[in-house]
Amino acid sequence: MTTASHEFAAIILAAGKGTRMKSDLHKVLHPIAGRSMLHHLMASVDELSPAHKVVVVGAGREQLENALDGSAATCLQEPQLGTGHAVQQAQRKLEGFTGDVLVVYGDVPFVRPATMRAMLDRLHGDDAPAVVVLGFEPDDALQYGRVLTEGGDTIAKMVEYKDASEAERGCTLCNSGLMAARAEDMFALLDRVGNDNSQGEYYLPDIVNIAIADGRTCAAVTSDKPSEVAGINSRAELAEAEAQWQDFRREEAMAEGSTLRAPQTVFFSYDTQLGRDVVIEPNVVFGPGVSVADKCTIRAFSHLEGTTLHEGAEIGPYARLRPGSVLEKGAKIGNFVEMKKATLGPGAKANHLSYIGDATVGAGANIGAGTITCNYDGYFKYQTTIGERAFIGSNSALVAPVSIGADAIVGAGATVTRDVGEGELRLVRAEQSVKPGWADRFHDAMKKKKAASNKGPGA
Amino acid sequence: MTTASHEFAAIILAAGKGTRMKSDLHKVLHPIAGRSMLHHLMASVDELSPAHKVVVVGAGREQLENALDGSAATCLQEPQLGTGHAVQQAQRKLEGFTGDVLVVYGDVPFVRPATMRAMLDRLHGDDAPAVVVLGFEPDDALQYGRVLTEGGDTIAKMVEYKDASEAERGCTLCNSGLMAARAEDMFALLDRVGNDNSQGEYYLPDIVNIAIADGRTCAAVTSDKPSEVAGINSRAELAEAEAQWQDFRREEAMAEGSTLRAPQTVFFSYDTQLGRDVVIEPNVVFGPGVSVADKCTIRAFSHLEGTTLHEGAEIGPYARLRPGSVLEKGAKIGNFVEMKKATLGPGAKANHLSYIGDATVGAGANIGAGTITCNYDGYFKYQTTIGERAFIGSNSALVAPVSIGADAIVGAGATVTRDVGEGELRLVRAEQSVKPGWADRFHDAMKKKKAASNKGPGA
Amino acid sequence: MTTASHEFAAIILAAGKGTRMKSDLHKVLHPIAGRSMLHHLMASVDELSPAHKVVVVGAGREQLENALDGSAATCLQEPQLGTGHAVQQAQRKLEGFTGDVLVVYGDVPFVRPATMRAMLDRLHGDDAPAVVVLGFEPDDALQYGRVLTEGGDTIAKMVEYKDASEAERGCTLCNSGLMAARAEDMFALLDRVGNDNSQGEYYLPDIVNIAIADGRTCAAVTSDKPSEVAGINSRAELAEAEAQWQDFRREEAMAEGSTLRAPQTVFFSYDTQLGRDVVIEPNVVFGPGVSVADKCTIRAFSHLEGTTLHEGAEIGPYARLRPGSVLEKGAKIGNFVEMKKATLGPGAKANHLSYIGDATVGAGANIGAGTITCNYDGYFKYQTTIGERAFIGSNSALVAPVSIGADAIVGAGATVTRDVGEGELRLVRAEQSVKPGWADRFHDAMKKKKAASNKGPGA
Repeated sequence: MTTASHEFAAIILAAGKGTRMKSDLHKVLHPIAGRSMLHHLMASVDELSPAHKVVVVGAGREQLENALDGSAATCLQEPQLGTGHAVQQAQRKLEGFTGDVLVVYGDVPFVRPATMRAMLDRLHGDDAPAVVVLGFEPDDALQYGRVLTEGGDTIAKMVEYKDASEAERGCTLCNSGLMAARAEDMFALLDRVGNDNSQGEYYLPDIVNIAIADGRTCAAVTSDKPSEVAGINSRAELAEAEAQWQDFRREEAMAEGSTLRAPQTVFFSYDTQLGRDVVIEPNVVFGPGVSVADKCTIRAFSHLEGTTLHEGAEIGPYARLRPGSVLEKGAKIGNFVEMKKATLGPGAKANHLSYIGDATVGAGANIGAGTITCNYDGYFKYQTTIGERAFIGSNSALVAPVSIGADAIVGAGATVTRDVGEGELRLVRAEQSVKPGWADRFHDAMKKKKAASNKGPGA
Repeated sequence: MTTASHEFAAIILAAGKGTRMKSDLHKVLHPIAGRSMLHHLMASVDELSPAHKVVVVGAGREQLENALDGSAATCLQEPQLGTGHAVQQAQRKLEGFTGDVLVVYGDVPFVRPATMRAMLDRLHGDDAPAVVVLGFEPDDALQYGRVLTEGGDTIAKMVEYKDASEAERGCTLCNSGLMAARAEDMFALLDRVGNDNSQGEYYLPDIVNIAIADGRTCAAVTSDKPSEVAGINSRAELAEAEAQWQDFRREEAMAEGSTLRAPQTVFFSYDTQLGRDVVIEPNVVFGPGVSVADKCTIRAFSHLEGTTLHEGAEIGPYARLRPGSVLEKGAKIGNFVEMKKATLGPGAKANHLSYIGDATVGAGANIGAGTITCNYDGYFKYQTTIGERAFIGSNSALVAPVSIGADAIVGAGATVTRDVGEGELRLVRAEQSVKPGWADRFHDAMKKKKAASNKGPGA
Repeated sequence: MTTASHEFAAIILAAGKGTRMKSDLHKVLHPIAGRSMLHHLMASVDELSPAHKVVVVGAGREQLENALDGSAATCLQEPQLGTGHAVQQAQRKLEGFTGDVLVVYGDVPFVRPATMRAMLDRLHGDDAPAVVVLGFEPDDALQYGRVLTEGGDTIAKMVEYKDASEAERGCTLCNSGLMAARAEDMFALLDRVGNDNSQGEYYLPDIVNIAIADGRTCAAVTSDKPSEVAGINSRAELAEAEAQWQDFRREEAMAEGSTLRAPQTVFFSYDTQLGRDVVIEPNVVFGPGVSVADKCTIRAFSHLEGTTLHEGAEIGPYARLRPGSVLEKGAKIGNFVEMKKATLGPGAKANHLSYIGDATVGAGANIGAGTITCNYDGYFKYQTTIGERAFIGSNSALVAPVSIGADAIVGAGATVTRDVGEGELRLVRAEQSVKPGWADRFHDAMKKKKAASNKGPGA
């Protein structure tokens, strides 16, 4: 057996219509933990370094090709005549390929690399079986097809539930649908599969019975985690998969040394990175691209995407950090503050009701309540630079591009349109018009008007 | 049997004190999914087009009459001498009525119209029973009264748990309390009910045993959903009913094609309408009166009441849409933005930290961060009108009544008190006072003062 | 038996390394419901008025001493040679003490005062046992040590799970680790405990078998709530303890007359006080020090710490009340409003996007949207005082120290730096610069620039 023969091609079936999702978005593009089912699966497949990846597509081909963005070949199955037929479509993308073929499903996104690895390894193990089937033993076997074995992992027969005898239904090993075979076996066997069944379809599992009839050995690999082969066909199943994923990640986060005061209310993304002694209060949502260093505190009702928190940073409650946010050591973002494409230097603070976008804030600077970086003119975005230890008074508008020097002070309520120098005070003060007694007269007049208007038209 | 005899009157018992709620609000006025128990029940009763509705009230009569607002008659039960006595009080509101009578309970709000319909239909079915009782089979029969039947749905005996023999307690059909009878039967039987029991009360179920003793047939209709007859007597039961209602609605929303990333964190109102391919992130609360069209996205931590979202609108995270908010096609409301009695035209945006009240915003307009429509002078509200494609600079205050023309630009930080014309630029710029070195001197002085104050009184 | 002999000393073991927490914070200082495990336990111990409290510490001594702040003595166990050795370290802090000794564990924080009382009382009951052990009967006895009894509560033998016979493992009474004995017995018995075991440690439970071998009686007190002796050794167990605590408190809040629309989403603090007919919407977080009077409404997504709400106050959604916030009768705080060290008089309102800090607001005053009290100059905090019925226009900055008189009006967009008198109108209006047609020309120019920039460098 040469090394070349251990190369493998992954065929990902994704041509199903997914009608139960009731969605214009392709079923396998629905996200779980911020990443599509398809990309979850592709990431796991990629861990095994496949020589080829072929995604079999049907309706929604364009959506899938956009999502894949060249990371895998696609081939069209049209019309859709069953899983066997689907795999056959991939053959023309694998001309001359003599390695192994692994068939997986876009709507079965959480099959683990180790499980797929075990299937491929089994193909080259004892007896070198013609086909390897992934079986699983669910709590309730329901109407899954059964994998009947005889002595060890050798398959005696594959049988659909509706065709199974009572004795056969008593078998608890079910067919996940995932299969592996050498390319030549896979396609030769598929050529012999017929469609003489009620649906008139070509079924992939039929290759097993054909191989057995030829006197060849087929082997079952059994998953030790049945949930990994769960298919997702409805939004309820999507939500259930998300819940399982989140529960697993929450347990992992706690085991690694983060405090989650109310784990059920924290939602991670597929790529969230957490340090040690991170404290996460209730109701926090992580979008993709968030990295949190040691000893950070994320208070309740915070929402983070594409954000890097360095050691000891503290955010929230009600912090909304959008992509490109960076908080350096010990920096703080408080309540009702939005930040995007901005860096807060060590120890800098923006604690209240502010918008910090396209900005660089120096170490130890203090951004007052209600400060807004005016970064957009309707066409282009502009930068704001704030120096170390600068103090931005409350309710200020910093009209970018603009620069505030180190140690400078901007007075409250200012609209700053020109740069402020280091150590400079910038005040913007309009004339205060004082009208003694005016308010009292206004109250009197308005009370009368209100009383009159309350009498209604009949008065 | 004439059509007239199929008319029915609903008698809704709501005189109970509800002491376990520990509330000054009448028990049946406590809300579930944004609507009171009483109104949930009335809406179900109304689906059957009753000829009369009589609500029997006791303490808190005024609260109930205000809540009913003339939609049903009320009669007072005072003193409260049992359920039979309560139904008798309704008799004077039904003088001359010869149709059927259905007795339901204000604190059993989720009995389904089909179930009540089945009870009324049974009254005119085989054997035309004198009384129809709604039975149910709970998972655990506990201390409910039992409905003992003999051959089909004919009732042999009604028995209170405490009076039941061991054999009778083994019967799993329980008495829900809901009853139907022809008006003449109902009231004639009630006249014969006594109060010779430990509580000295007149019990409605006694009419069944009296009718049976007269040799008449009484029939049981059995609910196929025991939870529909659950009574709500405490805040814990109220929360449990809310949870069940929400779970049902969440499943329904997903089945109809909405994505709920974390279903347990989404709270619907009784009347929430959702289109297809609506995406709802975690932690979203819907108040009454919300309609969401296809392909809208509602991001985390959003709160909506009385709001209409047209196709492709996107809100949140942290959007707070109050009654009268309308987002036309593709419009966007971002974080920490409050909106009320306002319309955002197609593609218009208000993405950050704004208050948009009593306003009309044209298509494609862009409302900058921190913009506030100043709609109130302490006595009256005033309108703001913003034209198509207008650009409102950040941190602006628009003092209503005021109008901003199409394509106009308002500079950042402006307080706009007069109309801005089409294509016009409005800047409000006060003098910027520059004091070089002032901030440095301030820092020096303050650091000294701070140091001195930290030394404390003993220094 | 004299009264003096009923005095007791509590020895709190807290020397464990808590490695499974993976935290730099000492295990017993991790909080549940806003209070550390250690302080939960100390509060329960304090209910029994101990004569002495000695905390046995190891690693992290300084953290513990800071947290205890003199409220208990500490003694160092170094090296750590088992629970018996730990108790011995406390002896030198109890020189001459002749009362009882109760041994509890810092990571078993929820043992109830009544349970500890029962242990101490048993020490002076029938047969006056030498040692009292707290046993418990968990749903699954797992590998806990067993307390074998003979006739009533007399202990026959203590046995570690690994040393237990099958018959002994069948015993369901488990050893919680909590023990009580007279001081002289405790320390005399401990002197005889050896370390001839696989860990080479001195185990506290060995005193029981030694006393029994001496022919003395030892007694078991059995907890009727096994969860009270659950130890907390990991963040997952910490989260589980928090969840149990919260569930208990939510049930209690509902039983006492508060509505929790979604109990699972409300998080209380150890000291939260709630009146009657308080309505709490989904997603509310209480930090320490919150007191809520009757008929208050706390809307969704609110966060409260150190806050007092008087009768009928209403906050949220999205209200963030920090320590020192007081809302008098019927006052209201609305969405995206932060408040700290401030009092809102009866009926006063701040409904939108505001920061109210270091302020006193008079009865009936109305704080407009976007108002900010500028209370900080980077060094000191200053007060804002707002009179009764004053009206603060939207988007105002009040630069403290500053005072606004009763019935005064501040115009929208003002930066107020000087006091405003009673009934006075204060307007701050800069010149409005009007440039007709400018915006149209700007749009044309920018569209060209945008188009050019989109062509890219190759154009």
